[in-house]
Amino acid sequence: MTEQQWFLAAVQQPNLAAKQQAEQRQLELTKPTGALGELEQIAIQLASLQGTVHPQIQRPWITIFAGDHGVVAENISAYPQAVTRQMLQNFALGGAAISVIAKHHQAHLQVIDCGTVGDAYDYAGVERHCIRAGTANFAQQAAMTEQECLAALQLGKDSVDQANAQAADIFIAGEMGIGNTCSASALACLLLNEDAAQLTGVGTGISNQQRQHKIKVIDQAVKLHHTKVKNDALNILAAVGGLEIAAMTGAYLRCAQIGLPIVVDGFISSVAALCAVRIQPLSRAWMLFGHQSAEYGHHRILNELNAQPILKMSLRLGEGSGAGAALSMIELACVLHNQMATFAEAAVTGDKVAP
Amino acid sequence: MTEQQWFLAAVQQPNLAAKQQAEQRQLELTKPTGALGELEQIAIQLASLQGTVHPQIQRPWITIFAGDHGVVAENISAYPQAVTRQMLQNFALGGAAISVIAKHHQAHLQVIDCGTVGDAYDYAGVERHCIRAGTANFAQQAAMTEQECLAALQLGKDSVDQANAQAADIFIAGEMGIGNTCSASALACLLLNEDAAQLTGVGTGISNQQRQHKIKVIDQAVKLHHTKVKNDALNILAAVGGLEIAAMTGAYLRCAQIGLPIVVDGFISSVAALCAVRIQPLSRAWMLFGHQSAEYGHHRILNELNAQPILKMSLRLGEGSGAGAALSMIELACVLHNQMATFAEAAVTGDKVAP
Repeated sequence: MTEQQWFLAAVQQPNLAAKQQAEQRQLELTKPTGALGELEQIAIQLASLQGTVHPQIQRPWITIFAGDHGVVAENISAYPQAVTRQMLQNFALGGAAISVIAKHHQAHLQVIDCGTVGDAYDYAGVERHCIRAGTANFAQQAAMTEQECLAALQLGKDSVDQANAQAADIFIAGEMGIGNTCSASALACLLLNEDAAQLTGVGTGISNQQRQHKIKVIDQAVKLHHTKVKNDALNILAAVGGLEIAAMTGAYLRCAQIGLPIVVDGFISSVAALCAVRIQPLSRAWMLFGHQSAEYGHHRILNELNAQPILKMSLRLGEGSGAGAALSMIELACVLHNQMATFAEAAVTGDKVAP
Repeated sequence: MTEQQWFLAAVQQPNLAAKQQAEQRQLELTKPTGALGELEQIAIQLASLQGTVHPQIQRPWITIFAGDHGVVAENISAYPQAVTRQMLQNFALGGAAISVIAKHHQAHLQVIDCGTVGDAYDYAGVERHCIRAGTANFAQQAAMTEQECLAALQLGKDSVDQANAQAADIFIAGEMGIGNTCSASALACLLLNEDAAQLTGVGTGISNQQRQHKIKVIDQAVKLHHTKVKNDALNILAAVGGLEIAAMTGAYLRCAQIGLPIVVDGFISSVAALCAVRIQPLSRAWMLFGHQSAEYGHHRILNELNAQPILKMSLRLGEGSGAGAALSMIELACVLHNQMATFAEAAVTGDKVAP
């Protein structure tokens, strides 16, 4: 394995002993067995990932990866490409949804430009690591070279290593990039060998007619790249992916390697997560799934990942916003798990009556 | 209208101007229209209820109403009746799920015994207003008299008036009472004119065989009371309700009268909410619905109330826990609504490209 292939190194295994202790603790808390539903499962999973019967979220870390997409030339997005950069500034200035959510949770918010279109700039709070000025139009050629794809994975790794150095205890990757639901749908089609109609939504809000056009663009791109990518996730990322999506994939793989729990966001993030799982199936264990997005096709990706989303609130914003919103429930799951009294402590009868 | 019929006095109307201002603000925030899904709708509803374009939750109030149920003599619950009182202490001592949730949200937690079985007691933090030592067994006779039912409604009113005096800005009613899913199912059957099989779940965790028995008990009780209650919600409450359920109904009606937003919890709370709406249809406007419970039949009640639950996490604990958990999302909805930048403030292009 070369240094560039860092992502093939083994991932961590969850702590089974901590998981069993957490399961046992849940049985002893003053409530009917299972009555806290998914809040119990979240606490148990996090116990296994943090290796302690008392999991907690103290230092959440959110990185937004941004990139532009050449495929916007095909007229597949509702908003102009300039919005990618405008939103980068908005993230850093605190006005975007994810900025507000990060502040609400006292989370560290990192903003990384992986490759947007336009002149050089200097926005306070935005880290500029442009690999290229947006991807190429994957309707006509590969979105990026293998080297560019590896560089994007590395951006994800570097971000996670920084989070880890700051003692982050949970990691959220968000994304921004006009056109990136189109890229994510194309990725999903190639990963799952399905038609675009099954995996393509309205993104930021195109009309149904525009969605039909988007589906046609994706189906044609899939035909163009299908044979060359040989069902390999890295090849697929380079062919139709985005710089920010590849960075997220790298981030997820690095989290699994260092044992940092992940909260996956919506459609695009879940496709990046699926790429990571295709590259290293055991990385799946480190993922919690923040929400079921309203974006058409997300359900299919979650099913493929055998994922149970925490929230189902028809969000479809991206930026990591759904994962960030889910932090509230993850924190609450930990607080309940750690602070509720046991039957013995509270002198409450835990035994059921004879039927 | 007599003093005892306070609950028939008119309820407040939501503020339509504030609602429209909030809708307009949502359109101007830096995100695609509707991309924050139900978080947008929550903020807009709360704006209409608080009468301001900037709704917020600063002083949540939670009251747990507890009561015992004579119908436990029919062997319909998984846990012994003594657990009702044991949990009262656990609420007050901080060990129960709702205690932990209340502390997490810095909510005021009030605990009211509306009528449990047993000797006099003095638990710090539990307000003892026993109307009677549990209801009568509604499988054989009315659960309570009309006067007792009115007294229970009054307990709910008094609690809300106290919350209001303390400047509470959102109200959650929780419940505790071994046997109370049985009572709630019987109420639902009489309110909706449906069979018990459609509206009866496993409560705290009975077996399927025990559930079949519970269904039979409820169906027979419905036959016993059906004609006498004349499809009147108050009569139905007295016939098969619980003291704590009637208190919740009174609380919801009072909230609507004074204009205090409500977060309804799970199955039992939603049945109490349905009673309130049957008594005063316009009270519905003041209700948000915390979650879709795992208790069988809850979905049917939510449909009847045209309610969109905030969380869907398979909770089935009661105590107000699902509504309390949903507070996290309600708070986040307000924070996003109030703190996100507008397109103009952030100099982000809000106009879509021409299709």
